[in-house]
Amino acid sequence: MREKESRPSRRVFLSGATAASVYFWIPKPVKGYSPAELAAMTVNEKVKPGVSKWDLDTPALCVDLDAMEKNVASMQSALKKYGLPSRPHTKTHKCAAIAKYQLATGSIGICCAKLSEAEAMVAHGVDKILLTTSNLSPGKIRRAMTLRKSHRDFIQAVDEEQNARDLSAAAKEAGVVADVVIDVAVGTRSGIPAGTDAVALGQVIDKLPNLKLRGILSYDGGVQHAKGFENRKERALKTIGPNVETFDMMKKAGLNMEIFSGGGTGTYNIMHLVPGFTDVQVGSYLFMDMQYLAIGSESGDAVYSDFAPSLTVVTTVMNNRFPGRLTTDAGAKALTLNTPNAGVIGEPGMDYSAGSDEFGAIRFTAPPTKDYKIGDKLEIIVPHCDPVVNEYDQMFGIRKDRVEVVWEITGRGKSQ
Amino acid sequence: MREKESRPSRRVFLSGATAASVYFWIPKPVKGYSPAELAAMTVNEKVKPGVSKWDLDTPALCVDLDAMEKNVASMQSALKKYGLPSRPHTKTHKCAAIAKYQLATGSIGICCAKLSEAEAMVAHGVDKILLTTSNLSPGKIRRAMTLRKSHRDFIQAVDEEQNARDLSAAAKEAGVVADVVIDVAVGTRSGIPAGTDAVALGQVIDKLPNLKLRGILSYDGGVQHAKGFENRKERALKTIGPNVETFDMMKKAGLNMEIFSGGGTGTYNIMHLVPGFTDVQVGSYLFMDMQYLAIGSESGDAVYSDFAPSLTVVTTVMNNRFPGRLTTDAGAKALTLNTPNAGVIGEPGMDYSAGSDEFGAIRFTAPPTKDYKIGDKLEIIVPHCDPVVNEYDQMFGIRKDRVEVVWEITGRGKSQ
Repeated sequence: MREKESRPSRRVFLSGATAASVYFWIPKPVKGYSPAELAAMTVNEKVKPGVSKWDLDTPALCVDLDAMEKNVASMQSALKKYGLPSRPHTKTHKCAAIAKYQLATGSIGICCAKLSEAEAMVAHGVDKILLTTSNLSPGKIRRAMTLRKSHRDFIQAVDEEQNARDLSAAAKEAGVVADVVIDVAVGTRSGIPAGTDAVALGQVIDKLPNLKLRGILSYDGGVQHAKGFENRKERALKTIGPNVETFDMMKKAGLNMEIFSGGGTGTYNIMHLVPGFTDVQVGSYLFMDMQYLAIGSESGDAVYSDFAPSLTVVTTVMNNRFPGRLTTDAGAKALTLNTPNAGVIGEPGMDYSAGSDEFGAIRFTAPPTKDYKIGDKLEIIVPHCDPVVNEYDQMFGIRKDRVEVVWEITGRGKSQ
Repeated sequence: MREKESRPSRRVFLSGATAASVYFWIPKPVKGYSPAELAAMTVNEKVKPGVSKWDLDTPALCVDLDAMEKNVASMQSALKKYGLPSRPHTKTHKCAAIAKYQLATGSIGICCAKLSEAEAMVAHGVDKILLTTSNLSPGKIRRAMTLRKSHRDFIQAVDEEQNARDLSAAAKEAGVVADVVIDVAVGTRSGIPAGTDAVALGQVIDKLPNLKLRGILSYDGGVQHAKGFENRKERALKTIGPNVETFDMMKKAGLNMEIFSGGGTGTYNIMHLVPGFTDVQVGSYLFMDMQYLAIGSESGDAVYSDFAPSLTVVTTVMNNRFPGRLTTDAGAKALTLNTPNAGVIGEPGMDYSAGSDEFGAIRFTAPPTKDYKIGDKLEIIVPHCDPVVNEYDQMFGIRKDRVEVVWEITGRGKSQ
């Protein structure tokens, strides 16, 4: 119940009557170019820089570059204070261009969730990859070791003895000694349970001729969205407890423990309290979304205002004829079914449902700021950034409302 | 409450103790090829025919070709009986290859949900397209008319006077008289309300120099999944009532009414009862999914067994260490968050949650049929076929458990 009470109301939240107010604005078409430019422009997949975001084909996935760059700077500055570097996760943005930007601005490496995602990143020039998920099939194991052969800083997660043996055999075949980290479970999702089993796996790996143990990773997905900073901190430090013990046991057993990686955007300012922790796998801090905005700040704000919402979807009003509602062109294929629902910027009285595949349905819980006409645009903050990015082939990098760059979503659909 | 009672229990449903039992089987790896073949095989994006579906990189989107072809034949045979042709929707499959198969097996045309989807289909040789959504921006209107110029059987939906005028102007610019249908609303999503407004729009279009009115479309998305055939029939015939009146009014007003299109997989055997109806926009009948399986058959079966589930996702068990549960590699990015949850074939006691982006979480509500090990495969029926297909770049056409063809998902991510 307490968690519920600490949530901002939808209206307060989107009207910007909070610390995050600077990031909420009402969409206004920016028809800054000449009539000749406008006439010549047929917006399609090959969008050129300079086009207003209000004139993109909708639904359009946009990232405000000023806001995203500020988020990166804020994160780097905070982590510097904690003495804890970042190893950001590409599962959030899936863009090689953004991964390179993160590496260029001080991140010590990049995490990938799946082998095909890592391969896509490597193919586009991204280096220093930690693949956080085990590969189990012979084909994937072989490909991971091929990747290791050409990239000596590639690190593979492993969480099972047989898998470690298969990996060592494939590494031998590729002529490499492959770097691995053990995925030690937090919760019941991926990884080997903390404790003696994990230590024993470490000792097996230590003896395998073609693997080099680098440490452990321990990612707690569940705690990232725990509401209220104190609650989140308490939970995060509690759930990581057995992993800290395991890390110490491994160290005492003489195993190489250079890496103790984990954490995320919800715990970036908590994990420095974990003894031995080496780096945080942040992701959503780049973009933010309705889920993260609702978790609350260390300052006590109900809105998580540490980072600015930079990722939005521009959508078009398709229908305004039925009282108390609008239809837009951004449905579940453009926004996913994650909750909380998408938030319409500048319109706290709009409740947005993406329950239909092709169309969004808005109901008015309070009068909108104007009479919306068919063809008007709305800009929305997405429910959950990772899976929404994965719905698009491209992301428009926007500066002062105009396209500065079009980024291919390199890892889109690479869930294998 | 009645609707709830008529739903099959999860256990009965997936154990196959119903008319659909023939389509549920327990996954068994089919290691039919030689050790030499196996050693040479590195499954990746360029999968060759002959590979077992159990050896594909997972999560893998598969369609059983025998089942899909049977579904097409069943639909064509039923519609022949009703004297009502099909105009299937590519929003379901997004594959040019499947659209061509539908046209080759008797469908009179193809529907597309968005312009970019239609453009992708046309670029891959699909013809006879009805674009069911209005285009509102100048760029999209111009592109639609460019498409019309090169494809004389392209038909564009329109639902507003200003949009009709813009379309006529663009058609004039392209040097064509463009075929249009009016989207007459059923419910409150897209389209102009039925009645005099719709008739007036028809009269405006009839006078516009570069548009040719062909009729109306009226799609009721909501009623497709209404549970229980009699309930569905009653609702479908009731909601379409005002549109039938509108159709008649337009006819009496001397407007050209060749087309009265709508309906879907849930109402394919109902819409022939609608006076004047010309074709059904079926889609999911190809694949089926957990949503459609639950709506019930005309025969009274709680399971909708008119068509066989042909679309599945093969996933790998990543973790089996925690009591009463398994982790797989197919999460929300592979299965979406639609409900009912994915169904594990042959394992009625598994409750599958795709709530995590990268991982699926299975809880046992009854003991599984065997002890699952890390690396074992499971095959699942997806929650809702349309958005799941949209998560993948390719679909594997499977015959007798082996890959026969790899289809590019031509329209993937084309939501604009």
